[in-house]
Amino acid sequence: MGELIDLRPNVTEGDLPLIRGIVEKTGMFRPAEVEIATELIGEFLERGSDSGYRFTVAESAGEVVGYACFGPIPCTVASYDLYWIAVHPSQHRRGLGRRILQDVETRIARDGGTRIYVDTSGRAAYEATRLFYEGMGYDQAAILPDFYAPGDAKIIYVKSI
Amino acid sequence: MGELIDLRPNVTEGDLPLIRGIVEKTGMFRPAEVEIATELIGEFLERGSDSGYRFTVAESAGEVVGYACFGPIPCTVASYDLYWIAVHPSQHRRGLGRRILQDVETRIARDGGTRIYVDTSGRAAYEATRLFYEGMGYDQAAILPDFYAPGDAKIIYVKSI
Repeated sequence: MGELIDLRPNVTEGDLPLIRGIVEKTGMFRPAEVEIATELIGEFLERGSDSGYRFTVAESAGEVVGYACFGPIPCTVASYDLYWIAVHPSQHRRGLGRRILQDVETRIARDGGTRIYVDTSGRAAYEATRLFYEGMGYDQAAILPDFYAPGDAKIIYVKSI
Repeated sequence: MGELIDLRPNVTEGDLPLIRGIVEKTGMFRPAEVEIATELIGEFLERGSDSGYRFTVAESAGEVVGYACFGPIPCTVASYDLYWIAVHPSQHRRGLGRRILQDVETRIARDGGTRIYVDTSGRAAYEATRLFYEGMGYDQAAILPDFYAPGDAKIIYVKSI
């Protein structure tokens, strides 16, 4: 902390390999998930906000250290999805995830969003992730057993803002 | 009933306006939902099964009378989503929805899928839809209040196959 973190609401071509690297380094995502995280950035670079994706990119001393990807859920009036949030392992436990998520929430509220949904896994490896969301005021709205794989449930969190 | 219904596992350029018309005529989908149903067909016509979408198209006497769109859920091992199912209002109450959904289930099982998810609305107007899924062996896995709009919950159904 005490360090300057810059949060910007846009993602550039140059961010793509850096963010991909961060998503990989967290060790929390399967290769197919890393591909999808990268594809969403590609769609935004091609189609801008028409892609339905929005980004918050965090920089520390000019280096990309984390990001989030979110957007309005199609066919809903005011529900948003937090698709991805990832922080470089070297920056963990410094409140950076909290800073990024607060920025996402502020931007969603400004856009008229009233509910934010996040999906995560019920596996033991994701306990810190679940505690992070719970600490940020997200409630478990649903548990879908065996969703990702046998023994790997999907937990849906929601926060009303 | 007694009538010949042909189910085919592909969708063509020519089906697009017909299916769009059926989706509109059901009166169950908002304009933005009709757009998305149409877009998914467009993506399949462009990218084939790489799009992640599969279709069952029902014909009666050479006319398209219903369809379903489904596919594997990215980042899951064996979970599938039924994205859309619609039957022309002139064909309602003849068991056509059941025939189409059984075909979808058979194809998902053949592809190694073990769970099928369907989202629908909790609004009164969707009671027949919910009873249809329940009659087909789908269980309510989650209710997300106010998901689509204030007072309009998302109900997630699941069937293990």
